Amino acid sequence: MSTVWMSRYASRVNGVNSSAIRELLKVSERSDIISLAGGLPSPDVFPVQRFEEACHKVLKENGATALQYGATEGYEPLREMIANNMARYGIMAKIENVLITSGSQQALDLIGKLLINRGDRVLVEAPTYLGALQAFNVYGAQYLSVPVDHDGMRTEALETSLRAGPKFMYVLPNFQNPAGVTLSEGRRHQLILLADKYGIPIIEDDPYGQLRYEGEHLPPLVVVDRENLRRDNGYSIGNVIYLSTFSKTLAPGIRLAWIVAPPDVIRKLVLLKQGADLHTSSFIQWVAYEVARDRFLDEHVKRIRHVYRERRDVMLDSLKEFFPSEVRWTRPEGGLFLWVTLPKGIDSQALFQSALKEKVAFVPGDSFYAADYHEGQRHMRLNFSKPNVEQIREGIRRLSVALKSELRYFRESTKPLVGSSC
Amino acid sequence: MSTVWMSRYASRVNGVNSSAIRELLKVSERSDIISLAGGLPSPDVFPVQRFEEACHKVLKENGATALQYGATEGYEPLREMIANNMARYGIMAKIENVLITSGSQQALDLIGKLLINRGDRVLVEAPTYLGALQAFNVYGAQYLSVPVDHDGMRTEALETSLRAGPKFMYVLPNFQNPAGVTLSEGRRHQLILLADKYGIPIIEDDPYGQLRYEGEHLPPLVVVDRENLRRDNGYSIGNVIYLSTFSKTLAPGIRLAWIVAPPDVIRKLVLLKQGADLHTSSFIQWVAYEVARDRFLDEHVKRIRHVYRERRDVMLDSLKEFFPSEVRWTRPEGGLFLWVTLPKGIDSQALFQSALKEKVAFVPGDSFYAADYHEGQRHMRLNFSKPNVEQIREGIRRLSVALKSELRYFRESTKPLVGSSC
Repeated sequence: MSTVWMSRYASRVNGVNSSAIRELLKVSERSDIISLAGGLPSPDVFPVQRFEEACHKVLKENGATALQYGATEGYEPLREMIANNMARYGIMAKIENVLITSGSQQALDLIGKLLINRGDRVLVEAPTYLGALQAFNVYGAQYLSVPVDHDGMRTEALETSLRAGPKFMYVLPNFQNPAGVTLSEGRRHQLILLADKYGIPIIEDDPYGQLRYEGEHLPPLVVVDRENLRRDNGYSIGNVIYLSTFSKTLAPGIRLAWIVAPPDVIRKLVLLKQGADLHTSSFIQWVAYEVARDRFLDEHVKRIRHVYRERRDVMLDSLKEFFPSEVRWTRPEGGLFLWVTLPKGIDSQALFQSALKEKVAFVPGDSFYAADYHEGQRHMRLNFSKPNVEQIREGIRRLSVALKSELRYFRESTKPLVGSSC
Repeated sequence: MSTVWMSRYASRVNGVNSSAIRELLKVSERSDIISLAGGLPSPDVFPVQRFEEACHKVLKENGATALQYGATEGYEPLREMIANNMARYGIMAKIENVLITSGSQQALDLIGKLLINRGDRVLVEAPTYLGALQAFNVYGAQYLSVPVDHDGMRTEALETSLRAGPKFMYVLPNFQNPAGVTLSEGRRHQLILLADKYGIPIIEDDPYGQLRYEGEHLPPLVVVDRENLRRDNGYSIGNVIYLSTFSKTLAPGIRLAWIVAPPDVIRKLVLLKQGADLHTSSFIQWVAYEVARDRFLDEHVKRIRHVYRERRDVMLDSLKEFFPSEVRWTRPEGGLFLWVTLPKGIDSQALFQSALKEKVAFVPGDSFYAADYHEGQRHMRLNFSKPNVEQIREGIRRLSVALKSELRYFRESTKPLVGSSC
């Protein structure tokens, strides 16, 4: 009977990544395991009390409206607040530039739906955000990858890929997931100039931009684009679609994010969103507005930075204390993740199995590559936002045990067998 | 500059219906207009107080979990409650048959994404739900239409269309949107037998099934399918994917609905949903569970039925009192809508303009046809859930004024001009 269905699946579903990482994350949720695997914010910083006050106020004062159908574009006061907040980061968005989405994942899906025809090439970083690959794969995307280093995407390697004619570029400039690296200011300018030269739009995904723990805030690509190229033509938003979210600043369980784009792009996305879910929960939007308003969000983000900065520092200190000297890692200035490069001979999937025995989990690097999974086998992603400082220290210690055991195994198995030639 | 974007749009967006109906609904929201146009539930029946208690409880007791990321499949206790509730309607679903979606619109989108390749044909009723056409159009669906009458889809006209090989059928068996008609029990059996004979799956969309105001509950297609054809093979869910929602029983602004399907179909849909929005708001799911639990939902649905039955009766009485005798309409046994067939010579778009002058709005019928918009011009959809009884009576009176004026105009313009032949 199931064959009725099996025979009817479009090829579309075949493009979807296997659920390997889902299974992996399930394992890492076992209570005896310290998980450095997920990408979850810490529930310690969810403003639960403020949410409760907001729910109470919204339902008392506007229950009937907040529980009714709403506009596909989103709740106007929330869109306006977002536009105003972004202006402080130099992003000159008006309300008609802002579309509310059901999490950034929906933004990625709508963009894939709008822009990708089967076989189109999308330029991504290597490594890049897994969820974006999942969203784009459904529409039959092919990929061009540009490697990142400690200063983000290596823009000097970009032009060759641009000549291959990608439909758009997908870039995470701040504290990238998974590598934790930040695109330098010089490279931001270079990227914008190249995008303009080849006429390739940029999707700028910025879920972590506000979570900077040290160093200076760098201008978003959408701002560099306007200032470099479009200062005088009256367009406030040009060649860049900018995405951000409340998932890392308020809470992910509300599934609330937004897209900033030129009005004609927003109009197309609104039609697609209407077909996709009519609109994002009006109740949630009213509540999030009440939570965030009156500068609460700004104050709250400061608290989150304080907590996560400490966790990052503990992770960096523990890595230095416990890890063998051949291992390398990034030093993120913000965000939730840190990226480890393993010594030659260590495979991150094998290490994962070994780590589970030590009761610690991480995400092996291969999930984050659109191609060249081989490169991913030499990396792992570590999360420092969800575990507390004790768990981080103990997690890194356990991981170092697994790592040393894998290293020992590799050395022994590759040791020349003295006398074996006779 | 915008041309950068314009030149990049995939053909996909061209398949999206124009925003004509959006504009129309905006007009109908003017405060001086009585709107019989929208498809909105009445805010008078939103259980606002119960929502407030639920929010308070969820945040006090489980705030940190409810605000965190959740499983793509949905919140387990909610899925289990849905499975149990449906068992009372004979639908033998287990938790692994249930996927929570962000409104039924997302269910339609995911189904389109899973099953439709560009050019595939989808069999729909004529008229059918506009939102389904919007969801399917994005994936390049072509349509086969089967007309409905007072007993729902005319199954005796179905076989010709099935021979043309549709990928699936999309059917609204109960109090159909827009026509308000219900598929008779005999036709349900006939439909299931034909679907089995030709191996064509059915998407059964049932947002209104619980809102029956008179007559006997009829078995859902998913039940007829199991009982007729798959009694002994151990599959509880066979050839039918069943959709329902909390939008019409709790509130639409929470965007919460579900899909019931065989486990292998659910697994594919879960992967697609993960790429589309990761998961539906966990907070909303926790809250909806707290609202609905302990049989509150059942009691609440009884209250809604009471309110809407009265409104339907007032609309039927007003139609009889005010409308010219040449006009025909359906007599829905439940749901939110009633369907009017206009006399020859009256075009529903022209009538809409004339009605606006009388300060009343409806939805012209042509929006609800996948093809054959011409047929739609003879119809209009009237909603009786949102307006109160006074508004319904006055709205129908105003509409009758517009209608009579259109009729007069038509008669005068077609009157033979005596003596004109000389």
